[in-house]
Amino acid sequence: MPHKTVIVGGGAGGLGAAGGVKAARPDAEVVVYTEYEDVAYSPCGIPYVHGGEIPDFERLFLATKDAYVEAGIDVHYETRVSAIDTRAKTVTVDGAEPVGYDTLVLATGFDYADPGVPGGDLEGLYYVKNIRAAMEWDKFLDTVKRAVVIEASPLGVEMTTSLAHRGIETHLVDPHPWPLAEMADPDIMAPVEESWRELGVHTHFNTTLKGFIGQGSVSAVDTSDGEIPCDLVVVATHKQPNARLAAAAGITIGTTGGIVVDERMATSAPGVYAVGDCTEIPHGLTGVPLQGLTGSHAYAQGKTGGTNAGGGSRNYRAVYVPWGTPAGKWVIGGASFGETTATALGIPYVLGQAQGISRARYYPGVKPVKVKLLAEPGSLRLIGAQMVGQEGIKERADFLATAVRFGLTLHDLATMENVYSPAIGALNEPIVMAANNGLDELRKAGRS
Amino acid sequence: MPHKTVIVGGGAGGLGAAGGVKAARPDAEVVVYTEYEDVAYSPCGIPYVHGGEIPDFERLFLATKDAYVEAGIDVHYETRVSAIDTRAKTVTVDGAEPVGYDTLVLATGFDYADPGVPGGDLEGLYYVKNIRAAMEWDKFLDTVKRAVVIEASPLGVEMTTSLAHRGIETHLVDPHPWPLAEMADPDIMAPVEESWRELGVHTHFNTTLKGFIGQGSVSAVDTSDGEIPCDLVVVATHKQPNARLAAAAGITIGTTGGIVVDERMATSAPGVYAVGDCTEIPHGLTGVPLQGLTGSHAYAQGKTGGTNAGGGSRNYRAVYVPWGTPAGKWVIGGASFGETTATALGIPYVLGQAQGISRARYYPGVKPVKVKLLAEPGSLRLIGAQMVGQEGIKERADFLATAVRFGLTLHDLATMENVYSPAIGALNEPIVMAANNGLDELRKAGRS
Repeated sequence: MPHKTVIVGGGAGGLGAAGGVKAARPDAEVVVYTEYEDVAYSPCGIPYVHGGEIPDFERLFLATKDAYVEAGIDVHYETRVSAIDTRAKTVTVDGAEPVGYDTLVLATGFDYADPGVPGGDLEGLYYVKNIRAAMEWDKFLDTVKRAVVIEASPLGVEMTTSLAHRGIETHLVDPHPWPLAEMADPDIMAPVEESWRELGVHTHFNTTLKGFIGQGSVSAVDTSDGEIPCDLVVVATHKQPNARLAAAAGITIGTTGGIVVDERMATSAPGVYAVGDCTEIPHGLTGVPLQGLTGSHAYAQGKTGGTNAGGGSRNYRAVYVPWGTPAGKWVIGGASFGETTATALGIPYVLGQAQGISRARYYPGVKPVKVKLLAEPGSLRLIGAQMVGQEGIKERADFLATAVRFGLTLHDLATMENVYSPAIGALNEPIVMAANNGLDELRKAGRS
Repeated sequence: MPHKTVIVGGGAGGLGAAGGVKAARPDAEVVVYTEYEDVAYSPCGIPYVHGGEIPDFERLFLATKDAYVEAGIDVHYETRVSAIDTRAKTVTVDGAEPVGYDTLVLATGFDYADPGVPGGDLEGLYYVKNIRAAMEWDKFLDTVKRAVVIEASPLGVEMTTSLAHRGIETHLVDPHPWPLAEMADPDIMAPVEESWRELGVHTHFNTTLKGFIGQGSVSAVDTSDGEIPCDLVVVATHKQPNARLAAAAGITIGTTGGIVVDERMATSAPGVYAVGDCTEIPHGLTGVPLQGLTGSHAYAQGKTGGTNAGGGSRNYRAVYVPWGTPAGKWVIGGASFGETTATALGIPYVLGQAQGISRARYYPGVKPVKVKLLAEPGSLRLIGAQMVGQEGIKERADFLATAVRFGLTLHDLATMENVYSPAIGALNEPIVMAANNGLDELRKAGRS
């Protein structure tokens, strides 16, 4: 009998794992169970189809079902795994006979947090996740005049921008004082709020959700700021790890509710790995467990967990979390954490910030780039960064996350060389300007 | 008497130095001599005005002459310094009485290498440098039907693209087998050559310049490939350090012809600094002296030299040379060196390369990004990189130059996290793909 790996979940983590197993052990039997009709599409693209930036859903599919058959990966669609027995090394599939495995990879993803208010069973509440559902919702969007987005989470920010681009009167309701308050600083988000206003978005911050109102279908959202009439609600609450199967099987769950894994993505149960949004991963600097990372993280974790599940050897590391997303007319992003999170965690920092530009000041299309660097007092090692701009945010976020990981200091960044070519880069790189400004401030304050 | 710094040259290096002196010693007397009518404009923008990407020359000016007066920087325009006496600490200006200095900064820039062929005194030979001249040449370009660019240097590449964009029949003559052959690899330049062909450019590689032909004005270029009729020749030969003043004063000149400086940008003469294209700077890995770096390097060297000339303390480091430029419809770039240079220097390397993309594969505007990484065999430390793409090349080049400087390995880059957000970044970062491919190749070859 060949080695058999069972994978529960068909998202980026699960399919990354399937590929990892096959790379490590080409003759392994790999079985994937998914509750959905499809695998191998990009859920991250859904908001952009709704917003009209991407013309259709079809192009979100990455591979045909045949491609998996050909790769020797046996995907079972619309199939639910209801239990795991880690001693017997079996999974129970749709209540039928247990299926045995040599190794198991859990890639069960996330659920949106229950808003926990009355009216949650009304029609017209859209939880963005599954592409087939999204295709149906997209038709419905053509009839929608007014929409409410619940919470300025990463998805909430994307959906707010997309619905506004689509010409729908969009209201954003969030209990925090500014959008993405758990990861982004208010100065980074201020231009985003401004550009939302230009797009006609109504923001309701410091506002608590009290309920969904309607007869059968939602007709209004009740909030601490009053009732907001609407035809649609996008529920973009916090992503919670879906660790139910693991928990029921006695596998160790962490403080965030995510499955605890080691650097091999192995859980507390022998032969059982977990990858993606159902896990928690330590932050590289603080060790604080994080969950709800990106599809890129899920895929990389999948490759690691799958490689190990296939008998190979691969490690995943603590994360430094480069992030970025369009928001209004801006792109925001960063690495590790910003001032708000540092303050909440009690982590002291010094700051270097600059308002730079993306091309030569005279080159058409030049855009502002604001860079804010947080460094450890004394050592001046970079511990976080936040940015708002339009060009080059993703590449700078990747770089700055790597700079945090390798302990680069403000001195190192202040002496960084940069490309100067009018169409693609300014004389002064904004990261270098921010580092120099931080050092200048310290000098003035007599602290360096 | 206040401290007096004299600066010879009004480009990025000279003005960076003027700012550096004033920052270190606000009451210093700072005198700048320039042979030209202007300072504080961006010569790097000139090709893009010729090409029509930038609508006019006026926007290349960075500051008014008044701004320097207000900053306490005394700029003497159209003024030539003809000699230096490093013992008497004086400079001779336009043959008049010697002018004393406490410290001197040489920022005398570069000259284009003399093509060394007959006909060099004909009209219609354009050496791109001075903005006033460029404004005159731009009017002439309206009458030009056919132009020849001599040498596929960085400027030659830019001017070839610009003239083609302007609708002029453009011929590029270069003695090497591919463009930018001294810094870029042929696989990186192949798409550029292809896109030039689409623009109607005629390339003549492996072709030697034999002379300029004409009666008064140039009417053809004579080459080893035959005569090329033309109305204009852009002479974009190698940039040579203009170190004549320094050499005549007995200051040490290096193997490239550039002024030798230490990390404070100090020359061999006490109190005399040199910055920018007139100097040579060691490459961070090899120690090989380099000259002809970018305006960004010149400006940073100026700040360093100026700070030290003003009595402050600042170091400049060996360079890892991030570079990038538009070329045809592509953007090319890299850091440190590529395969061609490594081979020429006898430096062994292993390679990791990948053809990636700049956004999610389904997101409109997605562009290819080819990344090639060179690493030291054994340690797998990054020693160079080359890229061709359209988006994010400058930011990746900055990052990769920093990665070379800090000794990051292919393993480090293969485990780099990256932003995944459909509009701004793909699931797999091309740098990470290239590093992983390199490691896979080594594994297959049994070398890691």
